Amino acid sequence: MVRTWAVSGVDLHLDLTGTRVRAALEAALRDAVRTGRLAEGVRLPSSRALAGDLGIARNTVADAYGRLVAEGWLTARPGSGTSVASRPVAAGRVPPPPVPRERPVRYDLRPGSPALSLFPRTAWLAAARRALNTAPAEELGYGHTRGLPRLRTALATYLARTRGVHADPERLVVCSGFTQALGLLAQVLRSRGATGVGIEAYGHRQHAEVLTAGGLRPRPVPVDAHGAVLGGSEAGALLLTPAHQFPLGMPLAAHRRAEAVRWAHDTGGLVIEDDYDGEFRYDRQPVGALQALAPDHVVYAGTASKSLAPGLRLAWLVLPADLVEPVGEAKRIADGHTSTLEQLTLSEFLTSGDYDRQVRRCRLAYRRRRDRLVTALRRDAPDVRVTGIAAGMQALLELPPGTDEDEVIARAARRGLALEGLRAYRRDTGDRGPALIVGYATPPEHAYTGALARLCAVLIP
Amino acid sequence: MVRTWAVSGVDLHLDLTGTRVRAALEAALRDAVRTGRLAEGVRLPSSRALAGDLGIARNTVADAYGRLVAEGWLTARPGSGTSVASRPVAAGRVPPPPVPRERPVRYDLRPGSPALSLFPRTAWLAAARRALNTAPAEELGYGHTRGLPRLRTALATYLARTRGVHADPERLVVCSGFTQALGLLAQVLRSRGATGVGIEAYGHRQHAEVLTAGGLRPRPVPVDAHGAVLGGSEAGALLLTPAHQFPLGMPLAAHRRAEAVRWAHDTGGLVIEDDYDGEFRYDRQPVGALQALAPDHVVYAGTASKSLAPGLRLAWLVLPADLVEPVGEAKRIADGHTSTLEQLTLSEFLTSGDYDRQVRRCRLAYRRRRDRLVTALRRDAPDVRVTGIAAGMQALLELPPGTDEDEVIARAARRGLALEGLRAYRRDTGDRGPALIVGYATPPEHAYTGALARLCAVLIP
Repeated sequence: MVRTWAVSGVDLHLDLTGTRVRAALEAALRDAVRTGRLAEGVRLPSSRALAGDLGIARNTVADAYGRLVAEGWLTARPGSGTSVASRPVAAGRVPPPPVPRERPVRYDLRPGSPALSLFPRTAWLAAARRALNTAPAEELGYGHTRGLPRLRTALATYLARTRGVHADPERLVVCSGFTQALGLLAQVLRSRGATGVGIEAYGHRQHAEVLTAGGLRPRPVPVDAHGAVLGGSEAGALLLTPAHQFPLGMPLAAHRRAEAVRWAHDTGGLVIEDDYDGEFRYDRQPVGALQALAPDHVVYAGTASKSLAPGLRLAWLVLPADLVEPVGEAKRIADGHTSTLEQLTLSEFLTSGDYDRQVRRCRLAYRRRRDRLVTALRRDAPDVRVTGIAAGMQALLELPPGTDEDEVIARAARRGLALEGLRAYRRDTGDRGPALIVGYATPPEHAYTGALARLCAVLIP
Repeated sequence: MVRTWAVSGVDLHLDLTGTRVRAALEAALRDAVRTGRLAEGVRLPSSRALAGDLGIARNTVADAYGRLVAEGWLTARPGSGTSVASRPVAAGRVPPPPVPRERPVRYDLRPGSPALSLFPRTAWLAAARRALNTAPAEELGYGHTRGLPRLRTALATYLARTRGVHADPERLVVCSGFTQALGLLAQVLRSRGATGVGIEAYGHRQHAEVLTAGGLRPRPVPVDAHGAVLGGSEAGALLLTPAHQFPLGMPLAAHRRAEAVRWAHDTGGLVIEDDYDGEFRYDRQPVGALQALAPDHVVYAGTASKSLAPGLRLAWLVLPADLVEPVGEAKRIADGHTSTLEQLTLSEFLTSGDYDRQVRRCRLAYRRRRDRLVTALRRDAPDVRVTGIAAGMQALLELPPGTDEDEVIARAARRGLALEGLRAYRRDTGDRGPALIVGYATPPEHAYTGALARLCAVLIP
């Protein structure tokens, strides 16, 4: 049972499943102090009162308080109860950083992040333990530039099974996130004489920056209801999001897929398939990877950033044969190879079935959140058209013509809700009307209801 | 108690401390099969015979054999005993990669690697568990480009204490290994107009490659008995190994340190201090970091590759104030940030004191190995002059004039011993005589005696 509760006006999130109630309580309080949600000097309820609120034993609360006092998070003074310490310093430890980088927002519906609370901490740690305990010592040394052979084999099997990728472990390169993967590709394309790369008219700013830093000029390609519109682009490469256009949300239509492959065949061009959320499709069979249609002309790019967590910095490329060597060499010069421990753990996670379980779990959670979003908007903001929701973890909310995106975003900010407009993802040629891109996986579970309520409130004219 | 034992002519290494004898036996056999040291079809001794050899219970051996048979590593046939399976496939798992990348050498004294068997697997996993269990979920998202604040704080404290670095957490950038760190610096220097960088006449080939890829031309600077000889280099930057020249082994003399700082002051140049093994000094007080003399003109670079393992891909830069922003931006474009889980774990490892314990443990082990090397050479190869041994994990073995390095290396290879000559580290202007660079941390413990014996054998004229 997962419960949301409040201490001194701060919503906290407590997972009461299993036997580790005290640990969960400690963690929730620690996080609240660390992130500043429970500020210095705030007085906590008595252990009796809090135990009553939560329906748990008073001793559990008292033990948790005692431990947090010992660690320096809280202070207890006879007669004045327990309160948040002025400087949370664990005994003998270095003090935590004084301020977070950005002012935390209370509710966040910006796109791009999975539900971080779904990261399978216990299973990941168990996989790390199994992997590290059986790894030969030499694997901890300077490693395989293109990735551990066992991970490349596990990924090839997984990608063939779930995404229909034509995957040969020898054609895989493991990278430290898609950002790095794209940068390595840009370097290699540049060294082969390419000067530009076609990108969709709407997409991540960071991708355009990475291409530019790699010496390639991004050339926006229009996007209509069927996805990217190809037509006489003279660029030698094309970056697409075929399964679920980011951020608009439509799949690349079948005839457009065929066109992209024909273009690559005819011109010797390269398609880079950014399959950032291909595993998360809700309403029908997933669209298989474009790469399978032309493995010698398409680079498939996948990532663990959506299925597990961006913080892992794990991604992978499946490359045409002639790119394996140069991309591997670029990787060697960039950082040698990706962390071996992360690779060992991911390999174990894939082969044990943990990865499949995680994807299923996330898919279910995201589908529920999506449905709640759609229901709430239909009820409270019927003028808003919601699209792009067959897959992934973001929705396009088209606002009535004439609405000022920035004004809506500013109104939301005043209510503690962070939003992003479509304009932030537009590259010069985009011509769509006002819209929001809502990332419905972003808020923690306990904050989703509040986030939806605030979203609807700012959308009501 | 750590024991080395032999099965079918293959030396295996078994740690009999603690209660996990069966697990250790299984791991040793699994590794031997995986790495090909125990080849397909090789017949193992009976459980009774092996138990007798090892002084452990027969059931322990029988249990281990049974488990490895179930996992597909071994096969058991009535009447013909237990032997190595033809294709070790764990049940329901993806088959491990068929062949290792390179033919494994039996004994390896090439430099550059720490003793990988000293990697503290248990403590590292425990730190990962503590770190991950207390990390707020939002830390698993797209993270701080320059590194987690708590890790930067922990590193700053550690570097100030142990290396005398003038370290401010705000000036630290966490990188994925020194290779990446050097590449980022090269990019930033290039974008500021630098065209070349001074490097020592002897050093890692990879470093020169990384600088070249970043658009800077490496310009070798001579190295004499006092370290790098500066003199009128017009390059805007200088890469040095002040604590322990790699691979020659001398520290940069005090007057040379002063010269380097003066050069940087007078010309506005930048010194990059590669402190790759600064923690490992045996015979006297460690030389403090050069960076402390001129924090606004020296970049300090450290790494976990020697103290923990290269596979972690963790390194850090302490930068002059004006480089923090551009290096951070280069890091953002390169890969966003370094793996958050690795950063969380390293942070916990540092603040818990585990890192200090690990350094002490390695220092002791390396010192013993160094002493054994020196004793063996003095006894068996008195014509060889051993230098560079006050610190680190490699020694310079100067061979009698006229000796052919390549011939010695080839002779060693025929005995299964991998060696490297000084020539492999020479950059055009190097003028030293024939020598070997012996990495005495590289072999696993059980193979060190054999490696030393082979080294002495090939050095006896």
